[in-house]
Amino acid sequence: MLLPKEINPDNEYPRLSRPLRLGIVGGGRIAQTQSLAASMSGRWTVVAGALSSDEKKSKERGRDFNINADRCYGDFQLMAEIESSKNEGIDAVMVTTPNHLHRDVAAAFIAAGIDVICDKPLTNTLADALDLEQRAQDSGVVFAVSYVMSCYPMVRQAREIVASGVLGQINQIHVEFLQDWMVPEGIEENPHIKWRLDPARSGPTSCVGDIGTHAIHLAQFVSGLDLERLKADFHVCGAPKRLEDTAFMTLEFADQVPGTLITSRLASGNRGGLRLRVFGELGGLEWDMENCERLKLNIFGKPDQVITRGNGHGVSPSVERLVRTGRGFPEGLIEAWANLYTEFSVSVAARRDRRAIPADLVAHPLISDGVKGVRFIEAAVASNERGGTWISLDH
Amino acid sequence: MLLPKEINPDNEYPRLSRPLRLGIVGGGRIAQTQSLAASMSGRWTVVAGALSSDEKKSKERGRDFNINADRCYGDFQLMAEIESSKNEGIDAVMVTTPNHLHRDVAAAFIAAGIDVICDKPLTNTLADALDLEQRAQDSGVVFAVSYVMSCYPMVRQAREIVASGVLGQINQIHVEFLQDWMVPEGIEENPHIKWRLDPARSGPTSCVGDIGTHAIHLAQFVSGLDLERLKADFHVCGAPKRLEDTAFMTLEFADQVPGTLITSRLASGNRGGLRLRVFGELGGLEWDMENCERLKLNIFGKPDQVITRGNGHGVSPSVERLVRTGRGFPEGLIEAWANLYTEFSVSVAARRDRRAIPADLVAHPLISDGVKGVRFIEAAVASNERGGTWISLDH
Amino acid sequence: MLLPKEINPDNEYPRLSRPLRLGIVGGGRIAQTQSLAASMSGRWTVVAGALSSDEKKSKERGRDFNINADRCYGDFQLMAEIESSKNEGIDAVMVTTPNHLHRDVAAAFIAAGIDVICDKPLTNTLADALDLEQRAQDSGVVFAVSYVMSCYPMVRQAREIVASGVLGQINQIHVEFLQDWMVPEGIEENPHIKWRLDPARSGPTSCVGDIGTHAIHLAQFVSGLDLERLKADFHVCGAPKRLEDTAFMTLEFADQVPGTLITSRLASGNRGGLRLRVFGELGGLEWDMENCERLKLNIFGKPDQVITRGNGHGVSPSVERLVRTGRGFPEGLIEAWANLYTEFSVSVAARRDRRAIPADLVAHPLISDGVKGVRFIEAAVASNERGGTWISLDH
Amino acid sequence: MLLPKEINPDNEYPRLSRPLRLGIVGGGRIAQTQSLAASMSGRWTVVAGALSSDEKKSKERGRDFNINADRCYGDFQLMAEIESSKNEGIDAVMVTTPNHLHRDVAAAFIAAGIDVICDKPLTNTLADALDLEQRAQDSGVVFAVSYVMSCYPMVRQAREIVASGVLGQINQIHVEFLQDWMVPEGIEENPHIKWRLDPARSGPTSCVGDIGTHAIHLAQFVSGLDLERLKADFHVCGAPKRLEDTAFMTLEFADQVPGTLITSRLASGNRGGLRLRVFGELGGLEWDMENCERLKLNIFGKPDQVITRGNGHGVSPSVERLVRTGRGFPEGLIEAWANLYTEFSVSVAARRDRRAIPADLVAHPLISDGVKGVRFIEAAVASNERGGTWISLDH
Repeated sequence: MLLPKEINPDNEYPRLSRPLRLGIVGGGRIAQTQSLAASMSGRWTVVAGALSSDEKKSKERGRDFNINADRCYGDFQLMAEIESSKNEGIDAVMVTTPNHLHRDVAAAFIAAGIDVICDKPLTNTLADALDLEQRAQDSGVVFAVSYVMSCYPMVRQAREIVASGVLGQINQIHVEFLQDWMVPEGIEENPHIKWRLDPARSGPTSCVGDIGTHAIHLAQFVSGLDLERLKADFHVCGAPKRLEDTAFMTLEFADQVPGTLITSRLASGNRGGLRLRVFGELGGLEWDMENCERLKLNIFGKPDQVITRGNGHGVSPSVERLVRTGRGFPEGLIEAWANLYTEFSVSVAARRDRRAIPADLVAHPLISDGVKGVRFIEAAVASNERGGTWISLDH
Repeated sequence: MLLPKEINPDNEYPRLSRPLRLGIVGGGRIAQTQSLAASMSGRWTVVAGALSSDEKKSKERGRDFNINADRCYGDFQLMAEIESSKNEGIDAVMVTTPNHLHRDVAAAFIAAGIDVICDKPLTNTLADALDLEQRAQDSGVVFAVSYVMSCYPMVRQAREIVASGVLGQINQIHVEFLQDWMVPEGIEENPHIKWRLDPARSGPTSCVGDIGTHAIHLAQFVSGLDLERLKADFHVCGAPKRLEDTAFMTLEFADQVPGTLITSRLASGNRGGLRLRVFGELGGLEWDMENCERLKLNIFGKPDQVITRGNGHGVSPSVERLVRTGRGFPEGLIEAWANLYTEFSVSVAARRDRRAIPADLVAHPLISDGVKGVRFIEAAVASNERGGTWISLDH
Repeated sequence: MLLPKEINPDNEYPRLSRPLRLGIVGGGRIAQTQSLAASMSGRWTVVAGALSSDEKKSKERGRDFNINADRCYGDFQLMAEIESSKNEGIDAVMVTTPNHLHRDVAAAFIAAGIDVICDKPLTNTLADALDLEQRAQDSGVVFAVSYVMSCYPMVRQAREIVASGVLGQINQIHVEFLQDWMVPEGIEENPHIKWRLDPARSGPTSCVGDIGTHAIHLAQFVSGLDLERLKADFHVCGAPKRLEDTAFMTLEFADQVPGTLITSRLASGNRGGLRLRVFGELGGLEWDMENCERLKLNIFGKPDQVITRGNGHGVSPSVERLVRTGRGFPEGLIEAWANLYTEFSVSVAARRDRRAIPADLVAHPLISDGVKGVRFIEAAVASNERGGTWISLDH
Repeated sequence: MLLPKEINPDNEYPRLSRPLRLGIVGGGRIAQTQSLAASMSGRWTVVAGALSSDEKKSKERGRDFNINADRCYGDFQLMAEIESSKNEGIDAVMVTTPNHLHRDVAAAFIAAGIDVICDKPLTNTLADALDLEQRAQDSGVVFAVSYVMSCYPMVRQAREIVASGVLGQINQIHVEFLQDWMVPEGIEENPHIKWRLDPARSGPTSCVGDIGTHAIHLAQFVSGLDLERLKADFHVCGAPKRLEDTAFMTLEFADQVPGTLITSRLASGNRGGLRLRVFGELGGLEWDMENCERLKLNIFGKPDQVITRGNGHGVSPSVERLVRTGRGFPEGLIEAWANLYTEFSVSVAARRDRRAIPADLVAHPLISDGVKGVRFIEAAVASNERGGTWISLDH
C-alpha cells in the first residue's frame, strides 16, 4: 500500500558515524515526547537523565526512558560533571524543566562543554537569556531552542515560498495561537497546570510565554522578518488568575510590515490553533497546525493552491528531506520533533568534527532565537503595563 | 430531487395585502443585486428610480430594472416629491449612491414620508448621521440600513445561540473582513474604484467604512454586546493611496469583553473573508461568509458541531423562516439580501397599518445601527490619528 | 463592500428586445423556486398558469405567483389553446407536474407551438419520451429539460477543463447523489412524499429517476462522454417501500471509460450530496454541490488547485457570464436555476427570430438529454431485474 | 504549550516486565516505518533481522536498524532456528517481504514457536492462507496481520460508535481507497514498483490485494459485519499492465447490508484516499485517512458532529489509550503503526505469561483477518473473470 517515498540519496541528511548520546533534564510528558522523537530520528540514543531531584525517583522514572539506573541522577550539576568526564558520556542534553530552571541547568551543561537543546521560553528574564547566550558563545557549544513548530515540513515549505519571492514584498502578517484547555472551571488548581500560572516558576507571563512565543517565532521564521515593535493587551478571560490567559497584540516587523497576534487558552473549539497568514504584493499563504499537512497558497489571479508534503507536487527537495511517509499518509507533531532532533544531530556532529554547522541542511532554532523570544515577552509585558503603547524589542 | 422545505404556515412571515412599491436612488451594480433580492422576496415591485443625475441616462438605465420611463427621474428631490404625491407612489426607497450623497437623498425621502433602506456607512460624518436619525424619528418613517450580513440564516442562528446562553458568558470576540481585490497594481485608478479612495466621496476612511463596519455590526449583532472603545491602526499595505486599505483594531465591548478586528483589501486569497469568532465560558462559535451555510459550534467537552440551515437539525424556527431551499441546496448572498427585503417589507407594512414593527419577526438593522457604524468610523479615525490610543465610541 | 463584478459587455448574454412571457403548469414548491429564478434572470415574466386542476384553486394559487386571475386555468389543455391564440400569449411553459403527467402536458404545448422547459425525468416510459421527442422535432419548438445541476458555474468550468484536455484522456468517472431525508421512520406516508414512491405516478423508480438521473446527466455533461452500458442493483435500505430508496451501479461510458454511481436517500448526514469525480491520464477534478463554489483540480505533480467562480482566477469568460456576485460572495441553487432560465431565454428568443440556437452561448439540456435520462432509467430497471447484469442503453 | 495529555493510569496498557525483542524479515522502507513505530510504542527493541538473502548485504542493511552484525542473517530459516534456540532470542518477528514469500517465512517462525506479525495480503493463495492459519493454531503462537488502518484512534472510535447502536441498524457501507502514484507514464517499469505488477510476486491482483484489502478490512472492522458476497470488475485505467490498477465492486455484508468498494491507483489528486462511510437507520459516520484525526458523525435531526481524538470530547477511554499527544497536536500513520505494535506486545506478553489475549485491551488484526483478506481477493478475481457476477467469500 505504501508508496515507498522516493529516496534520492543526494537529498538525505549525512549519515552519522555513530548514534549520538542524549541526556535528559526534566522528565515529564514533554521529555517523553522528545525522547520518542529523538529515537524516531534514528540519530540519538537516550542514555542518561536527571529526571527528578530525588535520586530514587529519578532512577524509577528512568525505566520509562530505558535509561540504566547508574546513569539516572538526582542532581543536574552532578550529571553534567560525570557525563562530561565519561568516555562515552552524553553528546547533548535536552532541558525540559519548568521555565525558571532553564538558565541554571543550561549553564551547567554549557560549562561542561555539552551541547544543549532547551525548551522555550529560554529563561524568565532577559538578563538571564543574554547571560546564557554569552556563555554558549564563549564555550562554543551548539545551543538549540525547541521552537518545534518550525520543523513541520509545510512550515519549511512556507518559508521557502516567501524567500523565493513569489509572494512579492510582504505587506502584512497575522498569527494566532488559540487553545481551549483552560476553559473548565477550576482547572487552574490542577497540579500539572498550577506552575504555569505562578510567576515564580512560569515567569512574568503564562499564555504569552508559552504559546505566544511559538507564534511569534513562527511568524519570523516563515517571513524572514524580525519583530521590531509591539503593542500588547493582556486579559484574564476566564476564572481569575495571577497571569494572563489571553493576549492581543499589534505588531511591527522589519521593513515596517504590520501584523497582529492573538493568543488565548480560552478559545473553545481550538486545540492546536496555531495559524499563520502572510500576505504580499503578489500573493499570500496560510498554515494551520490542526491541518499541518496542507499549506494554502494564493497567487493573485490564479486558482487557490494547496501544497501537501511529499514526493514533488510543489514541495522542495530541502523539505522532502523532512518527510518519512508517502504522500497522503499523515504525519504530525512527533515527526516535527524528530525533524528538530535530526537537524540538531547534524549540528552536534559538525561540532564534534570541528566543522561549521552546514547552513544548507540545518534551520533549527538557536539560542539567538531563544533570546529574541525573551525580548518579545519582556516587550509585551512592558507594553501591557503601559496601557498597550508601542514598545521596541530592543528598548 | 428537491425535498420540499417543510412549510409550517405558523412559522411564515405574514402575507402582505399587496406587493409593496420600491424606488431606487443610485443604480449601479449593488442596486441591481438589491433589486433582484427585493423581487426574490416576493414582496416588492421596483417601479421608480433616480438612476442617474442625467434624466436621459436615468431612463435608459431604467430599462435594466424594468421601470417605466415616466417614473425614471434625473433628480432624487423631484422623485421624492412626485412619488409621495402619487396615488400609487412608492412605499419605500433604496439608497445606493456613493456614501457622500446618502444624507441628502435619505433626508429628501424622509421629508416626503417615504420609508428608506440605505446603504452603509450611513453618512460620512457623525453630525450628518445624528441629524438624519433625528429626522427619521421625527417623521416616523421606517429607516433600515443594509448591513446585509446580519440576514444570512446561519448568522441569525449564531445570534440565537449566544442569546440562549449555551456559550455561557462571552469572554472574547474576534472578527475580520479580508478581501484581496486591491492587490493588482494600479487598481486604485480604476474608475469604479477611484471614489472609494477619495475622501470627498468615500468619507474619512475606505476599507474601515466599507467593510470594517460590516464586521463590527456583525460582531455586535451576534454577541448582543455594544462596542464601547477601540484602538485602531490604519495602514496602506499596497500601492500608495489617499485612504487606508488595511486596519487592525483592539476592541472593548460592553461588560468589558475584549476583542479584535482585522480588515484589509490586500489579503491575497481572501474574497469574502468575513469571519466571526465568539468565545464564552462554556463554548464558542465561528462563522465564515465564504462558507455561509455552515456554523461551527463548540461546547467544551463535546464533539465539534456544524449546523447547516434548513429543516430542523439544530436550526431554530425563526431561522427556518429565512430559508428558501431544502437542506444541502446552497443559498448565498442574494438570498441574504432577499431576507433583508422580506423583513423590511414587514416593517413597512406595519407602519402602513399603524402597527409597531413586530419584534419577533424583524431583526433588520435600523438607523440606530447606522449611527453606531458612523460612531465606530469616527472613533477609529481619531484613534489612528492619536497613534492607536483608546477612544470611546461616545467620546 | 461588494467588488463590482467587472463587466465586459462583449461577454454578456445578448439583450432581449422584450421580457419573455412564461406560463406554469404545476404549481408546487419547485415551480416557485423556478419562478424566482426566472425572474432573477431578468428575462422572464410569469403571466399565466394551470396551477391546479380545480380552476378556483388555480386562481387562488396564482396570487402567490402574481398571476392575474383571468390567466389562471384549471386545465392545461385549455391554457395551451388560449395562450397560443392570444396576442400576448406566453412564449414558453414550465412543466412541473408529477412525472406521469409530463408527457401529456408537454405534448399539448408542443402542439400549440409554445416552447417548453420540462422537469426530469422527462416521462415515465421510453416510448413516451421518444414520442415527445418526435413531436418536438416535428414542431420545431425549443424543448429544454431542467437538469439544473449543469448550470452551476463551477460545473461549467469543470466541463471546460475536461474539454481543454488538461486532464488528458479520461479513464474513470465516479458520481454519487446522496441525501438523507428518507431516514425518519414513517416519512413514506407524508403526503408530499407519497407520490414519489408510487409507481403509477413516479414511474418505475423513485431514487434513480429523481436524483440518479441528475447524477448521470452531470457525469455525461462534464465528461463529454455518453453512458453506454450499466449494471444496477436497487435496494430498499430503510423502511419497506414500493420503490427503491438506494441504488448502486457500475457504468461504462463511451470509449469504454468505466465508472460508478451511488445514489441513496438514506445516507444520514448527506443533504445535497451530489459529487462528481473525473480522473484522466494527467489529472483529475472533483465537484460537490454542498460546496458548489469550489472546484477541485489536480494536475499530477503540481499542487492541488481550487477554482472559485468570478473575476478571472482560472475561471473562463463563458463561465463568468453565469455569475452575479463578486468573488467570495456565495451563490447557490436558485442562481443555477436562473442561469438555466437565462440560457433558455436565449434559445427561445432565437426561435422567435428564426435564428439557430447560438451554440457558443447556450448549453442548457435539451429534450435529447431528457430521452437519454429515460433510457438510463429503463436500463437500470432492466439490469436490476436481471440480477445486476450489463444492459446497454440502446438495448 | 503542550497540554499534558491527562493520564489515567487505570486506562493505560499494562506495563511489560521487560521490552520485547523483535526480529525483521524483509528490510525495505515499510520495515523501517514499522521499526520506528515499534520503538515508538516503547515496548519493543529490534535485535535481529534477515534483511537480505545475501548475508553481507543483510549485515550492511542491519546498521540502518541498529542491529548487531552477528544477528543479521542471510537466511530466514536459519534466523528462526538460531533465534529460537538463543537464551535471549527474539520474542516475535515482523514479516515484510514481498507477498509471495509471506507463507514460507511465517511458517518457519511458527515452527520455531516465535510470534509473528505479517504484512497483508497474508499469502497469494487461499490454500496457503488456510495452511498457515492451521499451523498458527496448532502451534499456539500469536499471529497478527498488519491491517494498520484499524489502529488509527478515530477508526477505533468509529467502531465503538457503531457498536454502541447510536446509528441504529446499519443499512449501507461505502469504502474506497484511491491513490494516484501510478499516474506517471512508465512508472510500472520502476524497479520498486515492478514486483507489484508481476503475478508471480504480487499474486493474482495488484491494487485489490494491496489497498483493496485494507479498505475491506476497515469496513468490516468498523461495521462489525463480515463481507459475504461481492461482484467485481477489474480495470487497467492507465498504461497497459499485467494486473489491474483499478477495481469497482458491489458488496454484500452480513445481514444483507449492501455496499460498494472503489479502489484505484490512478485517481489523480488522491494520495491516501481511504474513505469509509457507514449509514444506519438513525445516523451515519465518515472517516477519511487524509484527515485521520477527524471523525464525522451525523445523527439525523441533530447538527453534524466532528470528533477529534484526545482528552474526552466524545472520545472513549479505550480510544484515549491510543493517543500520544494533546488534542489539536496532530498524529499520523506512524503513530497508528505504534498502536498496532503496542497491542501486539500485549498479546505477545500474554502468551509469554500463559494468559489469554485480553480482549478488552487488544483489537489488532489476527491471522483470521488475514485469511478473510485472501478469501476476498480470490472472490474478487473469480467474480471479475466471470464478468462481474456474485461470488460468495466461502464459495
